[in-house]
Amino acid sequence: MITISERGKNMPSSPIRKLASFADNAKKEGVKVYHLNIGQPDIETPAVMMDAVSNAHLKVLEYTDSAGILSFRKKLAGYYQSKEINVDYSDILITIGGSEGILFAFMACLDAGDEIIVPEPFYANYIGFAMAAGIKIIPITSTIESGFALPPIESFREKITSKTKGIFICNPNNPTGYVYSELELLQIRDLIKEKDLYLFSDEAYTEFCYDGKVKSTLTLEGVEDRVIMIDTFSKKYSACGARIGALVTKNKAVIEAVMKFSQARLSPPTLEQIAAEAALGLPADYFEATRAEYKKRRDTLIGRLSKMEGVYCQSPQGAFYAMAKLPVADTDAFCQWLLTSFRKDNATIMLAPASGFYTTPGLGKNEVRLAYVLNEQDINAAMDCLEAGLKAYPHNIV
Amino acid sequence: MITISERGKNMPSSPIRKLASFADNAKKEGVKVYHLNIGQPDIETPAVMMDAVSNAHLKVLEYTDSAGILSFRKKLAGYYQSKEINVDYSDILITIGGSEGILFAFMACLDAGDEIIVPEPFYANYIGFAMAAGIKIIPITSTIESGFALPPIESFREKITSKTKGIFICNPNNPTGYVYSELELLQIRDLIKEKDLYLFSDEAYTEFCYDGKVKSTLTLEGVEDRVIMIDTFSKKYSACGARIGALVTKNKAVIEAVMKFSQARLSPPTLEQIAAEAALGLPADYFEATRAEYKKRRDTLIGRLSKMEGVYCQSPQGAFYAMAKLPVADTDAFCQWLLTSFRKDNATIMLAPASGFYTTPGLGKNEVRLAYVLNEQDINAAMDCLEAGLKAYPHNIV
Repeated sequence: MITISERGKNMPSSPIRKLASFADNAKKEGVKVYHLNIGQPDIETPAVMMDAVSNAHLKVLEYTDSAGILSFRKKLAGYYQSKEINVDYSDILITIGGSEGILFAFMACLDAGDEIIVPEPFYANYIGFAMAAGIKIIPITSTIESGFALPPIESFREKITSKTKGIFICNPNNPTGYVYSELELLQIRDLIKEKDLYLFSDEAYTEFCYDGKVKSTLTLEGVEDRVIMIDTFSKKYSACGARIGALVTKNKAVIEAVMKFSQARLSPPTLEQIAAEAALGLPADYFEATRAEYKKRRDTLIGRLSKMEGVYCQSPQGAFYAMAKLPVADTDAFCQWLLTSFRKDNATIMLAPASGFYTTPGLGKNEVRLAYVLNEQDINAAMDCLEAGLKAYPHNIV
Repeated sequence: MITISERGKNMPSSPIRKLASFADNAKKEGVKVYHLNIGQPDIETPAVMMDAVSNAHLKVLEYTDSAGILSFRKKLAGYYQSKEINVDYSDILITIGGSEGILFAFMACLDAGDEIIVPEPFYANYIGFAMAAGIKIIPITSTIESGFALPPIESFREKITSKTKGIFICNPNNPTGYVYSELELLQIRDLIKEKDLYLFSDEAYTEFCYDGKVKSTLTLEGVEDRVIMIDTFSKKYSACGARIGALVTKNKAVIEAVMKFSQARLSPPTLEQIAAEAALGLPADYFEATRAEYKKRRDTLIGRLSKMEGVYCQSPQGAFYAMAKLPVADTDAFCQWLLTSFRKDNATIMLAPASGFYTTPGLGKNEVRLAYVLNEQDINAAMDCLEAGLKAYPHNIV
């Protein structure tokens, strides 16, 4: 009997998308579903991006260079330089979303059986890329009570074996919204230097920091050849559907190896590269309005959550996610129940159960991730649903 | 010392793209380079595709469903049904080019160490996907003298071990242009049934068959759950830069497993899905003009090659490639020399050395792949260059 592969069997379903069929059914019944489960913002994509595509007047929709359009890479280098990140276009490869950047980083730096250490909870799709690459993620648990700060660096040191090839962080963090402090980043830097490791850093949300500032791992001194930074246009410019990201590193051997994987898949999508290049022409203050909007949404969300009985949630500093502890024993069941059996004014809320963001069994069972990607009115309506839902939930109240 | 991965080291550079820097240098000197090295047609992309993108007036460039836009999948199912291929939308997942479809097929059906049998020469990027998936390609050599017909089915049988999980064909074939006969396909069908194997089939060029007809592997009876067909919009609609393809199979377990890999990378690019969906609204006779154009180009190319001393080339029935044997000992060196040291009327030709399409060492050293993707005038000018180049080449004339 032909069967699917072991990795195909072991590959987890996306915790962000796995309840989708229940949401679809609710919508078919005419129920309004507030999507706080997925990082799909309602912020308008800058018009210059779509205009650039329309104005390109391409006769033939051709492949681009496998590394991405050269003028685009040069402008992107300029964007990083404006943030005092010392890279040029040759340090940058355009990828199909941040997703492909992560996969290529794993493929180029790690072999099957290698291990990387990742603070959990972490973006669930990392598991998928690890599975595809045949590598093992070793989690170190951060806790909701500490605001998901970096666990003590000694706990990383204890997990390092001969198979450990790197540490992987996401900063600002998805799903926690935590922004690593300079001190924490320096601790990581010293450890990867001492233990001869790579540092993979997913910096998709770097423009979204509401208190203080994000330090890019590319500015860490003395580990320039160890840092592989993954970026994306999805969140920055509310252009998730563009699937345009970048892998950035000063390590030329890694660039060369990633380039070979890039050549195998020929090129990133042409139209969206044109759109993304146009976005880089936006004025420097473009992000201020978006940042202010997300900050307002965050404050609304956290304000509402803090008033709900039995709910625990600290205010996250960055990205557009918050993790909350709910007074239920199993958020997988609760989130499903919200979609199948609960309605408030013919509406309900969709959340991402947190269990999918942990790999240590049993963790996150009473936590959820909330994406504050909707406007304030919708966030308030969604919070009305959550508040009423928690009161109405017949099972497992702790 | 941190190092790149073994797979990163072993990953081959693209034989189609590896001479690119020599071509770039020639262009910088003002030399006209005729690109017969890469399957990038000069045929105009249908205007309806670009128009659909401009007319979509998207406010937010959102993720789509990981499986692809539903209405697009339904129309694509209609396209296959019009060719008497019995599939519906649930048998179809939209992928980021045919490239991703192949990678996902490997990931979902095969584990590291598994083997697939592939007639060589084959599309070089298969090696890259095999490397990424950790699987092994076992080549069976087809020969230029036989027009690259399927090698005797017994030679496949002899290579089957306990690790063999499938056979992989490309039909019409890249790089040879060969179109497998119904008899050959039935031989493969019987073997995969007998030996309990998958049949992976890359059918990117199925619209381009100039003599006779292509039979899709999806129409092979009795092996419906074994066939994984990979399709792409790149060549069909001259939209290589769109990076839109599809994985099609009646095997639901495979669809489910591939769906998990699809979810990990979120979604295919939105704008290009809109463009591709619009292409499916083109009239049924759309391909006739393109097909007639390629046939004319093929006949021009083969006519010219057949008149060159020492050159051997049969007329291919499909795709837009031809393999030719040249009177030189090493086409890698010759193709590089054409770019660096040969000019005719300030022009030269770029070809793909065939060694990269074989995995058996030493094969293809005196062969090249020619893509007849340029207009007749350019093909003639390119053939002028090749003819003069062969006469002028100072080394290794056989």
